[in-house]
Amino acid sequence: MQSPIEHLSRLLARLPGLGPRSARRIVLLLLQERENLMLPLAAALEKAACEVRTCSLCGNLGETDPCSLCASPTRDRTTLCVVEDVAALWALERSRAFKGLYHTLGGTLSALEGRSPADLKIDSLVARARNGGIKEIILALGATVEGQTTAHYIAERLAGLPITISRLAQGVPMGGELDYLDEGTLTAALTSRRSV
Amino acid sequence: MQSPIEHLSRLLARLPGLGPRSARRIVLLLLQERENLMLPLAAALEKAACEVRTCSLCGNLGETDPCSLCASPTRDRTTLCVVEDVAALWALERSRAFKGLYHTLGGTLSALEGRSPADLKIDSLVARARNGGIKEIILALGATVEGQTTAHYIAERLAGLPITISRLAQGVPMGGELDYLDEGTLTAALTSRRSV
Repeated sequence: MQSPIEHLSRLLARLPGLGPRSARRIVLLLLQERENLMLPLAAALEKAACEVRTCSLCGNLGETDPCSLCASPTRDRTTLCVVEDVAALWALERSRAFKGLYHTLGGTLSALEGRSPADLKIDSLVARARNGGIKEIILALGATVEGQTTAHYIAERLAGLPITISRLAQGVPMGGELDYLDEGTLTAALTSRRSV
Repeated sequence: MQSPIEHLSRLLARLPGLGPRSARRIVLLLLQERENLMLPLAAALEKAACEVRTCSLCGNLGETDPCSLCASPTRDRTTLCVVEDVAALWALERSRAFKGLYHTLGGTLSALEGRSPADLKIDSLVARARNGGIKEIILALGATVEGQTTAHYIAERLAGLPITISRLAQGVPMGGELDYLDEGTLTAALTSRRSV
């Protein structure tokens, strides 16, 4: 039987980005801030574990199903943004640049990690596209081999439908110094250059 | 009223070493591992917050007061190791090199941060030393200006008592490449050189 401190340290050390040392530092801080941080954190974990559900329409996480985005009357229902996971969905929401609906795949195709189209929510995406009402599908997948393979596969599956398929622009990121950018990004930025 | 996810993210982002981005990553992983990690973590936080107490003798954190170290019949009660905080105490325990008892100061003297002797557990250290039975006090404080100032101050306060006062050796750390060590450490290692 391990002590409460050890047990807590081991659980914390399993979180992404944390190891045994950082877990111990966190435990010591938490024990100094029991009322202000430790007990509220315990309650917040339990509450979120019980209340957060996955949206059956877009795959987003939230308190309701359908989620607040899918249920919102102000979102543009003719544009669908396809993302790899909820992290990508949240990142796009933070940008406030997209006002349509989402579709979360739950990953990307990967021969290496053995993820085939059946493992991703691609069939339900095609079904949503066929249901009508959608004018544009934005494939907002990462600029990685897996992301681009997945985007190609989806574009093929959606071919023939009266829907515009688009993807995110590739180029120099905001604040990016050319000196620090890789050649692939610079090539893409040059190829897709725009007149001023 | 913020959502359970936002509330949890904000609490996690207050932990040392975490920021908004790593907190979001942790929330997403936790929501995927609700039964195996999220709820056990909530329970472990609550249990530790309720059960862990500070040892009134040495300042260590544990389930009992006095702590398991102070209560142990196998520890050497004639040697006292003075440490800055519980983190340092745990680090020494992990080394398994010390078999005596501890005294946690609760910090180091610091003019900059306004910590005077009255803010540290120095009076209780002197009282423990005067009570008798202690043959050696090891000042295991950091090799920083504050640590060494605190060690000097304590050594002065303990002067005159029939107790050996010692401090940790300074030198080349295990696995340390000379090339990467600062001059202060190399000077200390040379000055305290030992015959083979």
